[in-house]
Amino acid sequence: MYRAEETVCAPATSGGGAIAVIRVSGPQSLTITEKIFFPFASGIRITEQKGYRIIYGEIRYEGKTIDNVLLSIFRSPHSYTGEDSCEISCHASSWIQQKILEALIKNGALAASPGEFTQRAFLNGKLDLSQAEAVADLVASESEAAHRIAMSQLKGAFSDKIKSLRKELLHFTSLIELELDFGEEDVEFADRKQLTEIVARVLSMAHDLASSFSLGNAVKNGIPVVIAGSPNTGKSTLLNYLLNEEKAIVSEIPGTTRDAIEDVVIIDGIQFRFVDTAGIRVTDDIIENLGINRTREKIGNAFLVLPVIDINEGSSKANDILESIRLQPENINKKLIILANKTDIATKENIEDIRENINTFPGDSLIFISAKTGEGLDKLKTVLIESVAGPGINTENIIITNIRHYEALLQVMESLTRVEEGLNNNLQEDLIALDIRQAIHYLGEITGEITTDEILDSIFSNFCIGK
Amino acid sequence: MYRAEETVCAPATSGGGAIAVIRVSGPQSLTITEKIFFPFASGIRITEQKGYRIIYGEIRYEGKTIDNVLLSIFRSPHSYTGEDSCEISCHASSWIQQKILEALIKNGALAASPGEFTQRAFLNGKLDLSQAEAVADLVASESEAAHRIAMSQLKGAFSDKIKSLRKELLHFTSLIELELDFGEEDVEFADRKQLTEIVARVLSMAHDLASSFSLGNAVKNGIPVVIAGSPNTGKSTLLNYLLNEEKAIVSEIPGTTRDAIEDVVIIDGIQFRFVDTAGIRVTDDIIENLGINRTREKIGNAFLVLPVIDINEGSSKANDILESIRLQPENINKKLIILANKTDIATKENIEDIRENINTFPGDSLIFISAKTGEGLDKLKTVLIESVAGPGINTENIIITNIRHYEALLQVMESLTRVEEGLNNNLQEDLIALDIRQAIHYLGEITGEITTDEILDSIFSNFCIGK
Repeated sequence: MYRAEETVCAPATSGGGAIAVIRVSGPQSLTITEKIFFPFASGIRITEQKGYRIIYGEIRYEGKTIDNVLLSIFRSPHSYTGEDSCEISCHASSWIQQKILEALIKNGALAASPGEFTQRAFLNGKLDLSQAEAVADLVASESEAAHRIAMSQLKGAFSDKIKSLRKELLHFTSLIELELDFGEEDVEFADRKQLTEIVARVLSMAHDLASSFSLGNAVKNGIPVVIAGSPNTGKSTLLNYLLNEEKAIVSEIPGTTRDAIEDVVIIDGIQFRFVDTAGIRVTDDIIENLGINRTREKIGNAFLVLPVIDINEGSSKANDILESIRLQPENINKKLIILANKTDIATKENIEDIRENINTFPGDSLIFISAKTGEGLDKLKTVLIESVAGPGINTENIIITNIRHYEALLQVMESLTRVEEGLNNNLQEDLIALDIRQAIHYLGEITGEITTDEILDSIFSNFCIGK
Repeated sequence: MYRAEETVCAPATSGGGAIAVIRVSGPQSLTITEKIFFPFASGIRITEQKGYRIIYGEIRYEGKTIDNVLLSIFRSPHSYTGEDSCEISCHASSWIQQKILEALIKNGALAASPGEFTQRAFLNGKLDLSQAEAVADLVASESEAAHRIAMSQLKGAFSDKIKSLRKELLHFTSLIELELDFGEEDVEFADRKQLTEIVARVLSMAHDLASSFSLGNAVKNGIPVVIAGSPNTGKSTLLNYLLNEEKAIVSEIPGTTRDAIEDVVIIDGIQFRFVDTAGIRVTDDIIENLGINRTREKIGNAFLVLPVIDINEGSSKANDILESIRLQPENINKKLIILANKTDIATKENIEDIRENINTFPGDSLIFISAKTGEGLDKLKTVLIESVAGPGINTENIIITNIRHYEALLQVMESLTRVEEGLNNNLQEDLIALDIRQAIHYLGEITGEITTDEILDSIFSNFCIGK
């Protein structure tokens, strides 16, 4: 897909606003732009300018002034793409932008594909592949935690780790391959003990990284939290309180909430995606039943499950609900944050009943709240943060968020597990070398040291235009 | 509202996209930005940079890297506002933008009000008021014609005209006031004949400009065109054909179209706002009657009215419909573009009947079309363009689009009409001078040579944030 000799252009901003930016990159970017951009100061030729300069002038096309613009000039290799490039900062009218792009294309530029600027940056060695992917995550980041992970990946912490693991494996595999070259002579250049150690270390790191994916993915897209429980326990009221607005329809009639309502709350920089669900109960209403089925599905996908129980309905009914949630196979390892609701209207006895008789499992939390008055909700927020922060989000651990990286790491683990077994069973060198090569290959795919056009195209086609 | 000593900041782009731009302007813009922006190259101080330079670096806030950004520096007076200012080009994440604005504000910047950058540009003499208003029109322009008018106003053609008229009036009024100083001496410095000529000239120009408003406003917001006629004549089919998509519900049942459906088509660079309307007929259906009332209203506001008649229903029924449209007081001076529809299924006799017997008024057009096959619609487009282009859009005439300018021009006309009468009736100099002063005042309001904080605030509060 890379057309190094071509110059491409695309809008880099979108929607309304006061100004818009159009990007041009490629060897002809300045000579093409010079045909439509006329500096107000006389005697200036943009093709003769140094990089990191701004020129004020007007865009003319088909004999008409299209707009007064600022032109920012970047010279190879000191640009985002590594190529000569420029950015045209114009007024944000869609008509103006369209005309400028048309003018550039008429003068020899091509319309850039989605992600083409970042792909060019990668192919020119300005970013490695996982850093390029971090750019897309950074643009999309909507919470502090998602931003922090993307930023750390962009800065290369993840790539550096992968690259150093790969280097160590490369070193050893070359020694083993050297042994193979000597054929029957039975020399041993690669220290088996050291190799076993290294494989174990890489395996454990790959395992840690791969296990961070479920959290990383949740942080990137918002941690899915399901609010569940039997009808009329105050789930919608709770969601409303958390959202500070009336998103869910609160009503006295059991079964009011049919559709799963989803909204996003950022607590302490972490994005939670709360889902209110249809109350679980036996009903003849077809539409409500559809809602209940959807609830069971949502609970299965959730990172956290918040069963809401009505204190006044007693511990026995509450335990039935908790059991029905725990019985779902997807929930086997999930800890529950049980919310005993309606402290504002509960009797002392009922509160005692819940406190004494409710069935909690190790790791579950039980919080007494009033979704109506807000009592206990600060405690809930603290528990939510701890439930996520526990596995590592607040440490300096590297967290992966990209399914492509996750899948490559699983392949690395599979290959290295075979290497481990091979070493234990004194397998032939050439078979061990093959598996190490495979692990090296998959590590290389993450950073882009090994790649194919197909992989690249599929990665960059998920970018937005102009990036 | 202007706080010259303050530095303000705001996002200049909006929505998604790959990058976002944050604007900072005011005397402290560089010292504030320096506290959060750290250049990657060592030894660079942004406060020591010349204007029109770009620096690459990172934004740091609360001990964390927020983003890698490009910083564009502008030095007073060579900036949009005329003040020291800079633009931060960051990744388009809403979280990143929010953090950068927060960092700027924590370090002493204020959040800019809507239009504050342009207001500062005006107050620093970079633009006059009508040019500043043209910036907002330029940003909003969505068609070539709207863009052309805004661009010509931004370039100052309109301001120059107003300023020169004002200057001539100023010259004469000072001569008249000189006469007043001489009191009883009966000298005449101001040549009455010349004054009469000038007043007549300014009056006629003010009149021309004011009359261009109805077209200018229509061009800016899209020319309102109503498609009207009795039920089942093919109005919705026509609209669909023009829009090339299925916006209106086409059905065989009379009365299908209840709501006025509105959409925009750009023909030859001019934006037309087509409105399909409920068929006009007698009906008991309350909702349909509401629709019919709305139709009558829409027809009244329209710049162009396109009655659609069904050729096969004969000239007599068609004439009834045309008469009912012409009878509305708002339509007295409107020319009709009558569309005789369904040529695809019409008999020769029926076509002859329409051609011979339909009542057209001078200036009306009669076009035979088939909304189904598209026959005759090129002719319709040509007629639409001519109907608008006729009054001057394709000439080099200055066209006003701003209701504030229109109202000021009406005041100018009123004052100058009194001056004309006064001169004819040999009215006292001091009364004539008063009226000339008033005309001068209103001309000055257009360009902002005379203005009040109240006027300014009301103008700029209609701007978008970041402009």
